[in-house]
Amino acid sequence: MRVTAVSGGIGGARFLRGLLAVLDPADEVTVIGNTADDIWLFGLKVCPDLDTVMYTLGGGIDETRGWGRHDESWQAKEELAAYGVEPTWFGLGDRDLATHLVRTQMLEAGYPLSAVTAVLSKRWLASLRPPVRLLPMSDDRVETHIVIEDEDGRRAVHFQEYWVRLHAQVPTHDVVVVGQRESAPAPGVLQAITSCDVLLLPPSNPVVSVGTVLGVPGVRDAVRSTNAPVVGVSPIIGGAAVRGMADQLLTAIGVEVSSAAVAAWYGARSGGGLLDGWLVDTSDAASVPVLAASGIRTNAVPLLMRDAATTAAMAGATLQLAEQCASDRSR
Amino acid sequence: MRVTAVSGGIGGARFLRGLLAVLDPADEVTVIGNTADDIWLFGLKVCPDLDTVMYTLGGGIDETRGWGRHDESWQAKEELAAYGVEPTWFGLGDRDLATHLVRTQMLEAGYPLSAVTAVLSKRWLASLRPPVRLLPMSDDRVETHIVIEDEDGRRAVHFQEYWVRLHAQVPTHDVVVVGQRESAPAPGVLQAITSCDVLLLPPSNPVVSVGTVLGVPGVRDAVRSTNAPVVGVSPIIGGAAVRGMADQLLTAIGVEVSSAAVAAWYGARSGGGLLDGWLVDTSDAASVPVLAASGIRTNAVPLLMRDAATTAAMAGATLQLAEQCASDRSR
Repeated sequence: MRVTAVSGGIGGARFLRGLLAVLDPADEVTVIGNTADDIWLFGLKVCPDLDTVMYTLGGGIDETRGWGRHDESWQAKEELAAYGVEPTWFGLGDRDLATHLVRTQMLEAGYPLSAVTAVLSKRWLASLRPPVRLLPMSDDRVETHIVIEDEDGRRAVHFQEYWVRLHAQVPTHDVVVVGQRESAPAPGVLQAITSCDVLLLPPSNPVVSVGTVLGVPGVRDAVRSTNAPVVGVSPIIGGAAVRGMADQLLTAIGVEVSSAAVAAWYGARSGGGLLDGWLVDTSDAASVPVLAASGIRTNAVPLLMRDAATTAAMAGATLQLAEQCASDRSR
Repeated sequence: MRVTAVSGGIGGARFLRGLLAVLDPADEVTVIGNTADDIWLFGLKVCPDLDTVMYTLGGGIDETRGWGRHDESWQAKEELAAYGVEPTWFGLGDRDLATHLVRTQMLEAGYPLSAVTAVLSKRWLASLRPPVRLLPMSDDRVETHIVIEDEDGRRAVHFQEYWVRLHAQVPTHDVVVVGQRESAPAPGVLQAITSCDVLLLPPSNPVVSVGTVLGVPGVRDAVRSTNAPVVGVSPIIGGAAVRGMADQLLTAIGVEVSSAAVAAWYGARSGGGLLDGWLVDTSDAASVPVLAASGIRTNAVPLLMRDAATTAAMAGATLQLAEQCASDRSR
């Protein structure tokens, strides 16, 4: 079975880890990683979501933080601060730095991000079974900026500044994905969507993770046209984001913070949208019949990824739902 | 008093530290640093000699190694090796990395190396008394390559590869300073030579440290024409380099490995060369009358920089010799 999954950072990466646990070693997984969080820092290209996927699946992640490397040290960061170099709010660890150095050097040498990601992935993903191929959503520069309001007035800041420095604790007015309209899907992305057996939208942020991948020209059409069942997992449980800042950003783009509203925003494929199936938490079971009526087959299972076992169970439920959707479609 | 000194790495930097100890806080020191050892590694511009001067004078150096930062860690280096990235023989520490990141980012933004060095120096040199101004010899790319012979035949390797990877333990045929003829002195370099009260050539490698600075077009003429006494300190004691690979490189360019031969190679100013004075070790005292006869006033003092006290005494002897040379010239 060929499974293709979109992924943001921690939520998507942990979901993928559960997915690998329930798939057969002979299956094939392609991950389309969000790159709209990417940022240039200290002259280095940092791809937080791609790195979180690599580190999480490859055993390099710091499990407590959910980002960056385990056994990390921060000597270079302290020294940069001692030189008075901004920004000081972004944590580039010493181990992590090596990833950005390799990436930046290859990009400067002219390799596209997809080629660089393939090289970096060799270290982290090559020995996984089932095998995992990580593709950036695009080789082009696409950057999420958030329109906020603070003492400097209404202005747009890079997503990382919004999230890491401001902790999303400022009035949030809009989401602007710079460069998206001019971007193209990275090599392999459209094919991974149209020629897979199951397409999964993990519980990553629907606006700035899954949404930015879907926003790359051609991706949404590919999702609409794939023969594979398209199944999403709600990042919202009982009216709040499981982690991250999905609530503020959904509100900013005018979407109610509920698993049903996010599903409706993705839309039923039968109605020109993206979803065949949608997985909600048991606490949101009330929305199951409503969404089913709108054309989205919805199952309710425990969605908290508490540990390896609950995460694997949730991934298994996602695949089960995909099977149900596939048999719905073949009827 | 305005003192200008050329400097390579460890030998020059330690000599400068002794010099600061014997100068008056109201004096002014300008250091012209060798940049022909510079190398691009992992996309970063590394300037080993400039950094050794900054770290040594500013209290950041690892005293045992004589290069790099104290309390250094090597996590990024290990990770780069884990990615399979070459070269693995050059030790970029985590703390040290920050310096190269700041430098590279500024260079990429279009600042010349001299402006970047001024910014980095603020952190390390700004509070020193007497004040120290560090100038790179040139803003242009000048790179020492060494013609060696090994299993791959006769070929040129970057100086750092020769020194750090090969430990200078290969047949050494020639020294080629790439880009030197097309280079120009960095802003302030010629003026620092022509308008100082004392010009010092420290016990740095005469070929690949002092020699490369002198080889920047215009520098040798400025040294010949300055009104300041020009005094050098021998890097050779009793037929061997105190440290480093001066012996192999002197041999490669056809100069005998002795303090007298190095002095003769620099030449007496009175004979169109560079030196008014030359400091040799007491063990080389036999050369004093010979060099004096050739027009180079030569004193013999203990030259080993064993500790702060012996280094300061040696720097004091250098200044004393400079005074003698100045009074010779005014006669």
